[in-house]
Amino acid sequence: MKIAGKAWRTIWPEGEDAVGVIDQTKLPHEFKTLTLKSKDDAAHAIKTMIVRGAPLIGATAAYGMALAMRENASDDALTKAHDLLLETRPTAVNLRWALTRMCDALRNQPRGARAALAWKEAAAVCDEDVEVCRKIGEHGVKLIRDIAQEKKGARVNILTHCNAGWLACVDWGTALAPIYMAYDEGIDLHVWADETRPRNQGASLTAYELGGHGVPHTILADNAGGHYMQAGDVDLCIVGTDRVTANGDVANKIGTYLKALAAKDNDVPFYVALPSSTIDWTLQSGRDIPIEERSEDEVLKMTGRLPGGGVATVSIAAPGSPAANPGFDVTPARLVTGFITERGVCAATNEGLRSLFPDR
Amino acid sequence: MKIAGKAWRTIWPEGEDAVGVIDQTKLPHEFKTLTLKSKDDAAHAIKTMIVRGAPLIGATAAYGMALAMRENASDDALTKAHDLLLETRPTAVNLRWALTRMCDALRNQPRGARAALAWKEAAAVCDEDVEVCRKIGEHGVKLIRDIAQEKKGARVNILTHCNAGWLACVDWGTALAPIYMAYDEGIDLHVWADETRPRNQGASLTAYELGGHGVPHTILADNAGGHYMQAGDVDLCIVGTDRVTANGDVANKIGTYLKALAAKDNDVPFYVALPSSTIDWTLQSGRDIPIEERSEDEVLKMTGRLPGGGVATVSIAAPGSPAANPGFDVTPARLVTGFITERGVCAATNEGLRSLFPDR
Repeated sequence: MKIAGKAWRTIWPEGEDAVGVIDQTKLPHEFKTLTLKSKDDAAHAIKTMIVRGAPLIGATAAYGMALAMRENASDDALTKAHDLLLETRPTAVNLRWALTRMCDALRNQPRGARAALAWKEAAAVCDEDVEVCRKIGEHGVKLIRDIAQEKKGARVNILTHCNAGWLACVDWGTALAPIYMAYDEGIDLHVWADETRPRNQGASLTAYELGGHGVPHTILADNAGGHYMQAGDVDLCIVGTDRVTANGDVANKIGTYLKALAAKDNDVPFYVALPSSTIDWTLQSGRDIPIEERSEDEVLKMTGRLPGGGVATVSIAAPGSPAANPGFDVTPARLVTGFITERGVCAATNEGLRSLFPDR
Repeated sequence: MKIAGKAWRTIWPEGEDAVGVIDQTKLPHEFKTLTLKSKDDAAHAIKTMIVRGAPLIGATAAYGMALAMRENASDDALTKAHDLLLETRPTAVNLRWALTRMCDALRNQPRGARAALAWKEAAAVCDEDVEVCRKIGEHGVKLIRDIAQEKKGARVNILTHCNAGWLACVDWGTALAPIYMAYDEGIDLHVWADETRPRNQGASLTAYELGGHGVPHTILADNAGGHYMQAGDVDLCIVGTDRVTANGDVANKIGTYLKALAAKDNDVPFYVALPSSTIDWTLQSGRDIPIEERSEDEVLKMTGRLPGGGVATVSIAAPGSPAANPGFDVTPARLVTGFITERGVCAATNEGLRSLFPDR
């Protein structure tokens, strides 16, 4: 998608031995790109959230494997790179999916061919992610179209949490892909963007990319969405996810569960958009998903632009008070209206998922 | 309660023609007091949230009337002061309650006696608030005691939203009064303090006052409470309120509704603590409560301490993106386990309220 009129992806090869990424820790205050030159660079980028969003984490891990093969293409190096990258973030399952795919593609190949193969495979992971997100958009836009018709063209209000836009993927996004497509086909719509504390990916990334594309949107404190649902000002919720279990439970950014409860209480449809690489067929329930506990500093400090220019980090809480910071929560399948996947829309149940993915 | 070992109230007379308050917009970064010398000072203090919290707003308005009577004790001045102060904040009903009480006490009195009478009446409003909060604490502490017994002395975890502590009242607090009393009698407890965006009263005021009293607590992003309820780490929720309607609906700080939904979904008792001055007997449903819409700057900017010292305000969101900022939401009575009032605990229904307040 576009930033200041120029088309970007979130990750791109730079020659055959380096990868460029947008430094998302600097957004929206600065637009800066970074070059990753090693598996360690890739691991660091995932861990520190220079890149974030389940699909982009997977894509970066794939390129991390490719960079590792440039350094050392032995079996041992393959395993070590896999393990190093896997431990960067515990919740998103796309990470494991991408690493397994890379290992499967490389393990039975001659050592001398691995580096070039890995590079191609990582590029394929990225290209396929773009295509998958485009398809999610095409399936999801029908839901928005239907609501627009029901409302006889009156503005459709869609709430989203965190950032599941193109910045979380390689391009298009998951939750935002249907929104971009609906906007592009001229549907009158408006997005409520939860700011998504503590890291503010909604206020900083979702608002940034929606603004860049011209989509009307309003930032909300995470506390406010329920109130707007009660008032009838939300027609649809669409969020992304970091892992969906076989029964349809959804791990996503902390706070998603609260919005799903409010949607249920107010009969607002609550959809989760995901590439099938986000489905963890090995887990039967969301209770089994490991929830990442992050630094309390993310709650206690906040970064922003100073009035005179420059960027500063300020301590916002009572001095000496501790904070806890779980990165994700689990929304039970019973609160989810449906999944929007690259193969279509289905119920948030094992049967629903199996109906679209009988081959998995 | 105490700050750095010294006992404070949030509001106090300074001689017979001025009132001291703690400037709560400066907390927790600076402790600063201010002197209010006129009704306009009082109105400004309420409007800009130098003082906030439904009971303290009422107390400040009472002193605002007293300051007005020092300036001009005519009938016309009485009405004008009433109207000026009433329009400062739309949601908290204690404001109207205190102003009506002051007018009732003064209107049939000779003009020459009004200033002195008003001063006494405002002091009585404050003293009674302290006593009412103490009683709320005594009734509420029983709930905590019961849970501590059930848990056989294991730590009791209580979640609260926003600040309904002594800083929101004259002393003790509403939601926090039972917590202070439980802590003082040696019950092992811990408070989850929602940071309460956008103004962060939880991270700045609740954490500040709990820390000042030594009560163990942890600050949470507003998104996190549901996750901890799912995990069984919340035994009880207690919040304050700005207005309770005759049917038991509760207006409180934006986001309260989301926590009440999560409490219901996880069988966590959800109590609302209030002085009876917060009950609006004239409204039959929460749908009729006016919800204050506040400045988008509260969402888009954040104030805190710079690493090198000093306090700065930074812009945290994508440049150019707008925000919406409703100050309160309404929690339907069906989600409320009970009310903790100065006369005891009751069901969140009209019958429950009438059982304790048949005289209103």
